[in-house]
Amino acid sequence: MATLADIGVAAAINIISALIFLLLFAILRIQPFNDRVYFPKWYLKGIRNTPVNSGAFVTKIVNLDFRSYIRFLNWMPAALQMPEPELIDHAGLDSAVYLRIYLIGLKIFVPIALLSWSILVPVNWTSDGLQFAKLRNVTSSDIDKLSISNVERGSDRFWAHLVMAYAFTFWTCYVLMKEYEKIAAMRLSFLQSEKRRADQFTVLVRNVPPESDESISENVEHFFLVNHPDHYLTHQVVYNANELAKLVAEKKKMQNWFDYYLLKYTRNKEQRPRVKLGFLGLWGKKVDAMDHYTAEIEKISEQIMEERKRVKKGDKNVMPAAFVSFKTRWGAAVCAQTQQTKNPTEWLTEWAPEAREVFWQNLAIPYVSLTVRRFIMHVAFFFLTFFFIIPIAFVQSLASIEGIQKSAPFLNPIIEKKFMKSLIQGFLPGIVLKLFLIFLPAILMIMSKFEGFVSISSLERRAAFRYYLFNLVNVFLGSIITGSAFEQLDSFLKQSANQIPRTVGVAIPIKATFFITYIMVDGWAGVAGEILRLKPLIIFHLKNFFLVKTEKDREEAMDPGQIEFYATEPRIQLYFLLGLVYAPVTPILLPFIIVFFGLAYLIFRHQIINVYNQEYESAAAFWPDVHGRIISALIISQILLLGLMSTKGKVQSTPFLLVLAILTFGFHRFCKSRYESAFVINPLQDAMIKDTLERAREPHLNLKAFLKNAYIHPVFKDEEEYEDDQFDELMEDSDDENCVVVPTKRQSRRTTAANSNASGGSSQSLPFNCLDTGKGKPDP
Amino acid sequence: MATLADIGVAAAINIISALIFLLLFAILRIQPFNDRVYFPKWYLKGIRNTPVNSGAFVTKIVNLDFRSYIRFLNWMPAALQMPEPELIDHAGLDSAVYLRIYLIGLKIFVPIALLSWSILVPVNWTSDGLQFAKLRNVTSSDIDKLSISNVERGSDRFWAHLVMAYAFTFWTCYVLMKEYEKIAAMRLSFLQSEKRRADQFTVLVRNVPPESDESISENVEHFFLVNHPDHYLTHQVVYNANELAKLVAEKKKMQNWFDYYLLKYTRNKEQRPRVKLGFLGLWGKKVDAMDHYTAEIEKISEQIMEERKRVKKGDKNVMPAAFVSFKTRWGAAVCAQTQQTKNPTEWLTEWAPEAREVFWQNLAIPYVSLTVRRFIMHVAFFFLTFFFIIPIAFVQSLASIEGIQKSAPFLNPIIEKKFMKSLIQGFLPGIVLKLFLIFLPAILMIMSKFEGFVSISSLERRAAFRYYLFNLVNVFLGSIITGSAFEQLDSFLKQSANQIPRTVGVAIPIKATFFITYIMVDGWAGVAGEILRLKPLIIFHLKNFFLVKTEKDREEAMDPGQIEFYATEPRIQLYFLLGLVYAPVTPILLPFIIVFFGLAYLIFRHQIINVYNQEYESAAAFWPDVHGRIISALIISQILLLGLMSTKGKVQSTPFLLVLAILTFGFHRFCKSRYESAFVINPLQDAMIKDTLERAREPHLNLKAFLKNAYIHPVFKDEEEYEDDQFDELMEDSDDENCVVVPTKRQSRRTTAANSNASGGSSQSLPFNCLDTGKGKPDP
Repeated sequence: MATLADIGVAAAINIISALIFLLLFAILRIQPFNDRVYFPKWYLKGIRNTPVNSGAFVTKIVNLDFRSYIRFLNWMPAALQMPEPELIDHAGLDSAVYLRIYLIGLKIFVPIALLSWSILVPVNWTSDGLQFAKLRNVTSSDIDKLSISNVERGSDRFWAHLVMAYAFTFWTCYVLMKEYEKIAAMRLSFLQSEKRRADQFTVLVRNVPPESDESISENVEHFFLVNHPDHYLTHQVVYNANELAKLVAEKKKMQNWFDYYLLKYTRNKEQRPRVKLGFLGLWGKKVDAMDHYTAEIEKISEQIMEERKRVKKGDKNVMPAAFVSFKTRWGAAVCAQTQQTKNPTEWLTEWAPEAREVFWQNLAIPYVSLTVRRFIMHVAFFFLTFFFIIPIAFVQSLASIEGIQKSAPFLNPIIEKKFMKSLIQGFLPGIVLKLFLIFLPAILMIMSKFEGFVSISSLERRAAFRYYLFNLVNVFLGSIITGSAFEQLDSFLKQSANQIPRTVGVAIPIKATFFITYIMVDGWAGVAGEILRLKPLIIFHLKNFFLVKTEKDREEAMDPGQIEFYATEPRIQLYFLLGLVYAPVTPILLPFIIVFFGLAYLIFRHQIINVYNQEYESAAAFWPDVHGRIISALIISQILLLGLMSTKGKVQSTPFLLVLAILTFGFHRFCKSRYESAFVINPLQDAMIKDTLERAREPHLNLKAFLKNAYIHPVFKDEEEYEDDQFDELMEDSDDENCVVVPTKRQSRRTTAANSNASGGSSQSLPFNCLDTGKGKPDP
Repeated sequence: MATLADIGVAAAINIISALIFLLLFAILRIQPFNDRVYFPKWYLKGIRNTPVNSGAFVTKIVNLDFRSYIRFLNWMPAALQMPEPELIDHAGLDSAVYLRIYLIGLKIFVPIALLSWSILVPVNWTSDGLQFAKLRNVTSSDIDKLSISNVERGSDRFWAHLVMAYAFTFWTCYVLMKEYEKIAAMRLSFLQSEKRRADQFTVLVRNVPPESDESISENVEHFFLVNHPDHYLTHQVVYNANELAKLVAEKKKMQNWFDYYLLKYTRNKEQRPRVKLGFLGLWGKKVDAMDHYTAEIEKISEQIMEERKRVKKGDKNVMPAAFVSFKTRWGAAVCAQTQQTKNPTEWLTEWAPEAREVFWQNLAIPYVSLTVRRFIMHVAFFFLTFFFIIPIAFVQSLASIEGIQKSAPFLNPIIEKKFMKSLIQGFLPGIVLKLFLIFLPAILMIMSKFEGFVSISSLERRAAFRYYLFNLVNVFLGSIITGSAFEQLDSFLKQSANQIPRTVGVAIPIKATFFITYIMVDGWAGVAGEILRLKPLIIFHLKNFFLVKTEKDREEAMDPGQIEFYATEPRIQLYFLLGLVYAPVTPILLPFIIVFFGLAYLIFRHQIINVYNQEYESAAAFWPDVHGRIISALIISQILLLGLMSTKGKVQSTPFLLVLAILTFGFHRFCKSRYESAFVINPLQDAMIKDTLERAREPHLNLKAFLKNAYIHPVFKDEEEYEDDQFDELMEDSDDENCVVVPTKRQSRRTTAANSNASGGSSQSLPFNCLDTGKGKPDP
């Protein structure tokens, strides 16, 4: 049991290390040669081109203005100054809403902390539960005197905790609801104010059924001409270009090497650089590097050309999916929200993701295999969560002294040294685990990719959900029950279901000091470390030194990074969980949480303004997940309090806490039905308003040209100009009339295009009315 | 413990009573004077007008053709002869699919019975578990020798039961899937082949937000003109006509009395009938009956006229809901499936129910109160299920000898008689319970009505779901655990969750004989009683004797009745549950179940062909519920087998059965995603096909006229002719041009109707394109 003094020492250490990070940051960031590391956002926006203080060569590298060192914390108010609307404009809605997660933490926990310190702490402090326990030789610390442990068994004082649990729940729900409302409104107004974007008009259609007489492209066109005759505009089929993308990536790599050697040669013209052809350039025949890579690039370019032809030629490489665009946002909204055919697994329509965030690779996955993939990943994640410790332990055993001696006897002389021995014994097992935990979000992201989501934001949301569950089981429950998740699972299966909240609940107050330390190390120091950007700093300077030739290279050497939602959000959620669980039990934990949220808000606001550059914009599509996880933390806290109370001789509280949990769940359902649709659906009214405004402003807009290449696979992007001309020529004849006939007997479209105006039609074709969005149409 | 012989005796009794019912039916049905009781469907269809054997007066009443008595069972093959498509045509899809529930019972249980009798019965019979038990003085019967009880503790023979559980599950799932597929296809082709119906074009809009400048009708019109400009046709607001409906019902009652006395007077012209005005006509002033009722009718007619004016005049009586009709089925399908505005609780659209099955009363419920009502009914149902025994016990205590003596001492002389005493003591308490159970479906139906569903089919589905739960808790679990549901709840709350399947599972084999008897009494004899139609028979003859004057009266005196889905389906589900639970445990129960399903199929097929007349057609909308409940019975059976096995020393089976339950649930999810949408959504393709065909066949159809009065409250129906003319005159000017302008500043629609073709428009109004569904449109 840690005493208050122990906690104080730990706090001091962590505060000092956080301060050191901040100080280092304050010094590094005002050095002009670090400017591109700490202010990349401004460079990417084109607002900044050189460090601010330009002048002599020395001042270009090192900041000699000592006054700026004195104001070393002035980034903090600067980070807070930018108002939210400007922030949304500057960094996007995703980032602005991400910051609100920290803000919501403050909004929830500051009043809760005030309340629990003014009511629960006195109630706990003036009890004598631990006095009695001491008589029975149970040791306890000062912190326990402030916690629920100090209240006597069966005391009526527990009602105070119960009432507080209700108060905390109501306050949290109130904040959550206000926030959901606010963010839904922000999202809708953001979407409404956005300029014209291809995804507003486009729907992703999946699982197009095969049609023996027609290619997929024809099939899609006919289907939508028939079933959305007044709204269908154009479509873009999806090619399976994964092979091609690989080749393009390979070519880029080769190009990079070529550039590297070229730079080397330009710096030292006397000797042409040479390279070994064998494994990793370590052995093999030595050849002239530049010639070698030129030849390689040429070879791959040819391959790419061939592959490109191959992909585009046959129907074999066309996936049964397409991006279908409509004449109006209304038409797209209708198509995305409706079921097209009576078979609900065919012609599936969904809102097309922003072109930037399409995960092209997964569009090639046949729809039927998605269910199987999902199932496999569920099972894999279950085993990852509960049995990850087994491979880790195996690697750890290899990484022990004996393991290394056995598997690599030639290393013996090194290992035998005493210093190395203690290093291996002390650090290696820990490092193996730490490495696993660092790579975990990436592993989960790979799992999501395998699962087959087609937009990056949905990939990230799934990975975040899994990471949250992993943290819940292995960090939260794992720390409380102390034992691997596998052991927990075993013991949980054996004991009865009602017993589990008790087992966990009892351990909660005991673990308070552990979690306080955890918050300080992982939360305070960890977040302060984030602002230093050590890895990008080092990599930028290395690249700058070895590779950068031109201004463009320097641009590319910048790694602004972005908010890795799937890696950071679940970790924030852990703090919500800890705060809500400990609020009625050990209120002393709350200030630590508040400091975390405040510090993290400051730092991430600074980073978002100055550093991060989001690769895509999902318009806060992740908010329902964030909301849902805070709610589930709330329910977990209630269940655990229930378990704790019932072991404290207050079984009467059980129904009250059960009702509270049910009410909380009801609140969740209410929020879901009230607000969630704003994050999923584009309502018809909003679509119609935008359509109407646009039609009034730009009556002669050529939407087809705007949409034509919006959803082309990135590897085809460079050839699109050439293709456009060809395409236009082909479409010319039918396009002009703006009228299309749909042959029922699956004949070529162009054969009957001329007589499209003859109403009544032959038995072969049913003519449909042409609808022109803006103007009138020829009299029949 | 019942022996095989006991069961045989019980079976004989029940078979005999069932046979007596069938024999009675066979005799009664061929009597011409019962023809309207046993063949009302044919009369209502207009195919039959008089009993088949007409001739002398006597043969019109009694059947004297003795040959027909010999062929007394010939209704059975006749019931089976009508092929299914004809049946659908004759009685509707609801009835045809309802019959398939019995058929599915046969399809599931016949192969399961064969399998379990050929494998499980020998396995059980050749074990010696009960021999050992007998040594320890545990009594057992022959039936137990055939059941799982006879297998020794921990024996490897249990693997046979486990494998069979898998086999039964897979077979049941296979049958269920095939059936779901078939019924979804039947529903779609039924809907596709249906002739033009108003609900195909109509959407029910609820929670129209208030608009200060406009009436609700105007608001609805403007909203849909703006947001569905190409498809909106017309709409019908919903009046709160509940008061008016009450008055109309009152008037009808008075009219009935008047008719009764008029008939009395025509039969006996000497004396004008007189009536007392007091309570129930028992005391008070005596007046001339016919004069009295004529005056009453006149008074109410006036009230009705006034109320009618009042309702139609102000906007106060218009509910914020409307039936909105579209020009095409496609337009209606789009509107029903999409979200209209960003607030998902406003402008809620759903597929309009068939006009016949609209539950008008509930359309007047404000939408916000629906959630509250739903919550109240959930709570009420919980208490009804678990505590219904408390008021019953209270009434039973009143209905005891002492209770009657206390509350009604004047009855003492009657009660004191020995015969009456035993009658009261023996029957009254049972009758009270039985009465409650008879009225339970009606009570649940009232609860559904209170909950606010707007279509009768959804009312029935909710009531059926609740009745199923009630049966599950009080009949199934209640019989197994023996103890009131309230006591069960108490004991379940106290024991751990894992323990519950064991507690129930252990009792399963013991209760087999009880349930066999239950099946015979409730299933065999009960269903055979259904065919007799005792209540309608008596009521018809009473009415016929006292009231009937004209042929029309005779028509009205017929009570064909209908399948009371909410009362009968949950009872069938109980047999599915029993069959699935006992299939691996006590296979001897299965033949009894099979006999039930076969008999019920025969009888209900006969009734549906000859008797029942469904009041509405939901096109088998109930099937997802039926399917879901069979699946849940399957999962319950697996969990209970798990509990039973684990008490039989076979804990190893637990993971296998858990996996089976999870797989079954996965199957349910699969079926839901694959087939359920066919029961909820009208896919766009199907709508488009029907639209196109109709347009080709009837290009000049006046759809507006067809739809105008489709969704008028029944109490307004009789005055619709008059209103029509008025309405037409009003609409004439704007209607002809088929173009409507939507003023943005909420001015009257008609002021800008003339200049609707001037494109560009003034700042006051944004003109929308006019779209004419069938023909061309004027050149601008």
